Amino acid sequence: MKPLLPGATLGILGGGQLGRYMAIVAQQRGYRVAVLDPQEDAPAHQVAHYRIVAAYDDPTALGQLAEICQAVTFEFENVPASSLEPFQKAGVRIHPGAKALAICQDRILEKTAINACDIETARWAPIRTEADLYGALERFGETGILKTARSGYDGKGQAKVRGTAHAIQAWKAMGAVECVLEEIVPFAMECSVLAARDVEGNCFTHPVCENMHTHHILDVTVSPARVSESAARAMRSRTARIAQELDYVGHLAVEFFVLPDGEVLVNEIAPRPHNSGHLTIDTATASQFEEHVRCVTGWPVLPYEMNVQAAAMSNLLGDAWEGGEPRWERLAEHPDVRLHLYGKAEARPGRKMGHITGWADCADEAERVVRNAREALKQDSV
Amino acid sequence: MKPLLPGATLGILGGGQLGRYMAIVAQQRGYRVAVLDPQEDAPAHQVAHYRIVAAYDDPTALGQLAEICQAVTFEFENVPASSLEPFQKAGVRIHPGAKALAICQDRILEKTAINACDIETARWAPIRTEADLYGALERFGETGILKTARSGYDGKGQAKVRGTAHAIQAWKAMGAVECVLEEIVPFAMECSVLAARDVEGNCFTHPVCENMHTHHILDVTVSPARVSESAARAMRSRTARIAQELDYVGHLAVEFFVLPDGEVLVNEIAPRPHNSGHLTIDTATASQFEEHVRCVTGWPVLPYEMNVQAAAMSNLLGDAWEGGEPRWERLAEHPDVRLHLYGKAEARPGRKMGHITGWADCADEAERVVRNAREALKQDSV
Repeated sequence: MKPLLPGATLGILGGGQLGRYMAIVAQQRGYRVAVLDPQEDAPAHQVAHYRIVAAYDDPTALGQLAEICQAVTFEFENVPASSLEPFQKAGVRIHPGAKALAICQDRILEKTAINACDIETARWAPIRTEADLYGALERFGETGILKTARSGYDGKGQAKVRGTAHAIQAWKAMGAVECVLEEIVPFAMECSVLAARDVEGNCFTHPVCENMHTHHILDVTVSPARVSESAARAMRSRTARIAQELDYVGHLAVEFFVLPDGEVLVNEIAPRPHNSGHLTIDTATASQFEEHVRCVTGWPVLPYEMNVQAAAMSNLLGDAWEGGEPRWERLAEHPDVRLHLYGKAEARPGRKMGHITGWADCADEAERVVRNAREALKQDSV
Repeated sequence: MKPLLPGATLGILGGGQLGRYMAIVAQQRGYRVAVLDPQEDAPAHQVAHYRIVAAYDDPTALGQLAEICQAVTFEFENVPASSLEPFQKAGVRIHPGAKALAICQDRILEKTAINACDIETARWAPIRTEADLYGALERFGETGILKTARSGYDGKGQAKVRGTAHAIQAWKAMGAVECVLEEIVPFAMECSVLAARDVEGNCFTHPVCENMHTHHILDVTVSPARVSESAARAMRSRTARIAQELDYVGHLAVEFFVLPDGEVLVNEIAPRPHNSGHLTIDTATASQFEEHVRCVTGWPVLPYEMNVQAAAMSNLLGDAWEGGEPRWERLAEHPDVRLHLYGKAEARPGRKMGHITGWADCADEAERVVRNAREALKQDSV
């Protein structure tokens, strides 16, 4: 398939921060950009050429977008299959494709696909009936993480369960929808591998990211991760294998658990640029958004190289606005970090408002740089 | 002066490619951006939050911009002093300031200021009368470059003159306005130094850029320039001295002639990001636009470091569209370059439509990379 040429229009479903950075890159490369998002002043609407304010399943709006764009991509995986139809009909190129999206939006299909490549996940079982739940609990020692098969993110749609009574209650609270029960693994670290794969099947991976979460939301990422070379190699090669298996085109991230013995298990796949990849904007020869836009418009993937020894990223959640605006002026004493804000008007707890990137000669120091800067932003810090 | 905090609005006079990149950076850093440009679909209008379509001297439009922004900056130096008044009245911070703009928009004031720092230019004389012209021609061997004191760029408003009759004719063709006559110097190379200076007076300079022109328009830039270390040092330190002398805040570029013996002469000052600095977008720890936005919003300047051994940039002028769109698809075989397009609808000869950046282990190779990529874009190339 020939690359999409400058002057053409890229459609983006979803106008959050991921869509915003995709739009910025695409515009610099000479594309026009059309964003569909239900929210009027969404981060990506603020910077796009064409703004379609409508629900993701609004057939008229989707038809309108399909008419003006020559390629379409997504900032999230929970795109209803029906939303792809107008684009398929109009002959718009769709990346990542329907198959990859369908697999990644369903934990049962996703884990099945991963295991089918001989790649290990935590042990898991599909839960469709109470009997499934009993059986799985028995296998995993009466405990596990119950997750809805579809539509979960940032810890939403999941619960740690212990004992059958609790598990059944939790499942019912989720509406008794299709779920998976995952065995609890005593991991030493969570990691992700950023990867981009082009239409020709060429794939590059970024050095492994080490991810620290708070309340199930990504808090700080450091790259390269402080893991053994063999663990890093395993994660990068498995990510490339998964991308190949899904016949994936675009940027993706695969999340891993690293066990105390150095073994690695896949947690899940994010078929899009990923929060942990934000550090690439300031510290890599190509950002994850550059990689994504290149791949989905049919250009060869770029080598994924770091410009620095070690990079770190800290999210800025809405919580940091409690008690007033963060003390931005204090960043004047932290010229070694880059502030990113996504243009969101309302700061709600848990909402991703922006992030800070820093770098240094080693991972420990890079982590210290971003944590210090974030600490300085607090109202009560001195 | 305290830094301007995120959430505030930055006003930009001028909506071309320089304004566009300023807007993109400012938005990423959490500012809202308002652009004033007479052209409806100007490159920066396409990405800004607020778009004011009006002439640069329209008092109503300027008043409107002054009302919504807390800081204002410029993508060109030919801003009428009267256009600054609404901002001065409204207490909007203006960088670079009125003094620097006034000096840089008048070649007589500019050369006087440079020479006043004991920094050499080519010999020159102010031309206000025919007698001035006779006198200057006599001093410079009956030849020289006649340039209007104000409003020239990219070779416009200048003429190489030989002999009094020709010189007088050229001067009259320019409307007999205030001019300078510059001695013709047999330079070996043209260079520029990119520099950024913050409100505290801290200044960083980028490694020297070597600039190759065609028909007076920048064609290819390579950095670091292939000059001696002492010449490079002289150019960087003189640039910093000029920035200090002008009490400059923001990003500027100083253009130099390098003589065959390695001596350097200042050609002119560009009080803004500069075409030769476009290579910083893809190859430096901070782009010239990042530096500019930081400085004009009152943040500390960032160290100006290259991420690569050598970088090169080639302009894409509208001429490349003659006979049809450039052969973009051929860039698939040049994954080592980054294409930038500014979103201009109409490709006219001499119009800057975009550029290509590349990098390599040495300047010669970086130059080869961008020249090859540009050559491939030609209709008739194989």
